[in-house]
Amino acid sequence: VAAPTRLEDLSIRQPRIKAPRRLEPLASTSTHDRAFHSYGSSYRDVVRGFRGEFDCPPDVVFYPTSEEEIEAILDWCQSARIAAIPYGGGTSVVGGVEAPRDNDWAGVVSIDMSGFGRVLEVDRDSVAARMQAGITGPALEADLRSYGLTLRHYPQSFEYSTVGGWLATRAGGHFATLHTHIDDFVESIRAITPTGVWQSRRLPASGAGPSPDRLLIGSEGILGVITEAWLRVQPVPAYRASASVAFDSFEDGWHAVREVAQSYLWPSNLRLLDAREAALTAGQNGHVALLLLGFESCDQSVEPQIKRAVEVCAGHGGRLLSGIRSQERDGGSEANENAQAFRSAFFQAPYIRDTLVAAGILTETFETVITWDRFEEFHAQISHRAAQAVAQTCGDGCVMCRLTHVYPDGAAPYYTVLCPARRGSELSQWDTVKQAVSEAIVESGGTITHHHAVGRDHRRWYDRQRPDPFARSLQAAKQALDPSGVLNPGVLIDHVSSTQPPQR
Amino acid sequence: VAAPTRLEDLSIRQPRIKAPRRLEPLASTSTHDRAFHSYGSSYRDVVRGFRGEFDCPPDVVFYPTSEEEIEAILDWCQSARIAAIPYGGGTSVVGGVEAPRDNDWAGVVSIDMSGFGRVLEVDRDSVAARMQAGITGPALEADLRSYGLTLRHYPQSFEYSTVGGWLATRAGGHFATLHTHIDDFVESIRAITPTGVWQSRRLPASGAGPSPDRLLIGSEGILGVITEAWLRVQPVPAYRASASVAFDSFEDGWHAVREVAQSYLWPSNLRLLDAREAALTAGQNGHVALLLLGFESCDQSVEPQIKRAVEVCAGHGGRLLSGIRSQERDGGSEANENAQAFRSAFFQAPYIRDTLVAAGILTETFETVITWDRFEEFHAQISHRAAQAVAQTCGDGCVMCRLTHVYPDGAAPYYTVLCPARRGSELSQWDTVKQAVSEAIVESGGTITHHHAVGRDHRRWYDRQRPDPFARSLQAAKQALDPSGVLNPGVLIDHVSSTQPPQR
Repeated sequence: VAAPTRLEDLSIRQPRIKAPRRLEPLASTSTHDRAFHSYGSSYRDVVRGFRGEFDCPPDVVFYPTSEEEIEAILDWCQSARIAAIPYGGGTSVVGGVEAPRDNDWAGVVSIDMSGFGRVLEVDRDSVAARMQAGITGPALEADLRSYGLTLRHYPQSFEYSTVGGWLATRAGGHFATLHTHIDDFVESIRAITPTGVWQSRRLPASGAGPSPDRLLIGSEGILGVITEAWLRVQPVPAYRASASVAFDSFEDGWHAVREVAQSYLWPSNLRLLDAREAALTAGQNGHVALLLLGFESCDQSVEPQIKRAVEVCAGHGGRLLSGIRSQERDGGSEANENAQAFRSAFFQAPYIRDTLVAAGILTETFETVITWDRFEEFHAQISHRAAQAVAQTCGDGCVMCRLTHVYPDGAAPYYTVLCPARRGSELSQWDTVKQAVSEAIVESGGTITHHHAVGRDHRRWYDRQRPDPFARSLQAAKQALDPSGVLNPGVLIDHVSSTQPPQR
Repeated sequence: VAAPTRLEDLSIRQPRIKAPRRLEPLASTSTHDRAFHSYGSSYRDVVRGFRGEFDCPPDVVFYPTSEEEIEAILDWCQSARIAAIPYGGGTSVVGGVEAPRDNDWAGVVSIDMSGFGRVLEVDRDSVAARMQAGITGPALEADLRSYGLTLRHYPQSFEYSTVGGWLATRAGGHFATLHTHIDDFVESIRAITPTGVWQSRRLPASGAGPSPDRLLIGSEGILGVITEAWLRVQPVPAYRASASVAFDSFEDGWHAVREVAQSYLWPSNLRLLDAREAALTAGQNGHVALLLLGFESCDQSVEPQIKRAVEVCAGHGGRLLSGIRSQERDGGSEANENAQAFRSAFFQAPYIRDTLVAAGILTETFETVITWDRFEEFHAQISHRAAQAVAQTCGDGCVMCRLTHVYPDGAAPYYTVLCPARRGSELSQWDTVKQAVSEAIVESGGTITHHHAVGRDHRRWYDRQRPDPFARSLQAAKQALDPSGVLNPGVLIDHVSSTQPPQR
């Protein structure tokens, strides 16, 4: 087991730029702050951090607490050819908060949004709340709970990630069906673009032109710095029911899951773990696929729904393990032990990555989504290509899969690979595996990401899957809002400078 | 009662342009075709048609049957400074298919999509279907029914409107909650832009950048001509339950409706009619507000849900009229008589407009959406301003309201005004009423449209509600895809010609 580089041993390049006097109070150039804001939280990031490789840190880290300060930062960046990277919780696993490495920029700043950490208004009549973009999951939930409300958006990065980051990356959350992405909760968004404030009207729905919010959601910081949003929240669930169902095969399991999804029962949890994943994260024997099934409601018993779902599973050979656990109001236990084991493993996984790196284990996850008609072939293909890549690159290792989100028309499989790394070659090994599996995903008709975003790491596959006219639209929109191209350059699209003729 | 102008008495201006030889087989310049494609179906359109006023007809109507033909039409339009208007069912009530009146254009063509009228693929595994954009509601449903499937998207224009039109205008449909707009059913869209084919990847969901589909949905023909889409459909419901609940006041009613929505029971029908509307369309006595409540499922009984909803209503003084009607599989009656009466009135309303015009009755509808915290004041304000406008403009008349769609965070009120018109002054009267109420809606925080789109008629209010940076983004996107600005010019945004500096 190797040890990580210590902060005091770090030597990183001197800042290439100096914040102007009026921005100095918000600026930090400390080694800690600059190293901390260099990377997100991917395997590659952890390895580089572990090794003390911070060859391209931001020159300055800003901690603004007002929109005027963000405007002043962006003004400076535009006038001095400086790239600006909005920074939420730093939990990107796709290189979404990393500095550009090209020579187009005199310097790079990170805009840390932690100073925007408050809930600003709670509207109990409409069950909605206005919040600042830099608030983290736990802070948001703590505040909402005091009103008996909850957002119930629990990405794996929950502890550190922020509302602004969730919106910018179209984060996937708690609900396995129906409201799978943060997109579904948005009433309005406010953002600072380099050429003005973007504020959408707060509405439950609209039919007035293309949705402005949907252009910002997923924009990964290239169009503006999100500062606030009104999101739909909900009362804390008072009724819950959960069950674990074992299947002889993953195939039996996904047939059952598909039928449940197509019954429009909308379970909150419908996570199917293959035998390997069930053994590793939910204490099973390695021979059964495990379905974690859960329903919740703030208003009424969910017994009819869970009974029907269990019945559907039985039709595919699903065996109920230790009965249905129900909770009404504040009585009963919240979830069965399998679900608890999985939840615990789920939230610990990102932290274990550090330990795995120290222990010389290479790990990566791949997540995507595909329609049911192509699922069987797709899953076989990705599993095969992942196993092959791991064997060829690392000599040994394993691939496991779970379905994280399920739709009436398809499912989102999530693959985890674990294999022994060769010390010093971790990054090239990671790159080889990443490339082989990503290639297989896009080639086979899936999306390069269901909820991890594009960032820098997924760019080359994203470029192949998005419609070309949409890319030109997005590029034109960026050009209109950010004519100097300072915002998160290189992420999602390339900047077209105003003097350059449009690419056709 | 006046009589409409007869076709043979119509005299409309000669076509200003002539289709090139290769497009001639697709072109019509008949008076009927040109008059027919001049307008949508708004009150203003009906009045003008009735009077035989077709002062700005399209010069040529094209009936393409292939994408190559659409490309050829757009190529010709670009090269000859001709505006091109995609035409679905012609049911726009906002001037969405009307020719521009400025002098920027050598001519105007209408692209009638009725030649794209087929379902191309049905994927039963994923419960989805690939269909052409020009297919109408009845043709689509008839085809899907042969597979036991249905889209269940029933706008008031169902009989004539098309899939492409629904997508281009973000049409609202059958479901009063949850899946209120066509937006919610989209897997992918294909469109012909003047600079290339837009084809999104078919996926149940995605987190890869901003959603390409969401930029096309609601684009009202300014970015491209939609030719195909994969939409999520569903099995025909086997279980239904419906009930009518009477309330002493509209206020009691909307309090109940809000609680039902915030219970996340997701009824398919949750339409609250005020006393006037309940009397006119559902046979009530004029003293009670009426809630039409309905649930449906393809898989399981919906009795628990409707019982719970009725219980919630009772808590607000709601009285069940003639019990709950349930249907399981193919037994029982489909809906109670109030719901049937309303449904019949709902689908007849657009046709009655012709009769009303003949009888000298001015009619208009206003639809919007607002969060619950502002609902009471908003509704009072709009009702007051509408009544005032009607009284001042027509001397007499009435205003009624129903909630068409309901959200946990708000409701979509739909106002109908009816008043006596002065023969010859109908359009200026209509304009005065339209302006007063639209102004009140946007001033009070609502959206200028929940599901009728923007077109030409809503432009000035839309311009005030959308974020300015979004308008610049959309303008830039249009410039990138349609550099000559030929597609439906004047709708949603103004065209910025390439030589003109960007507006800031």
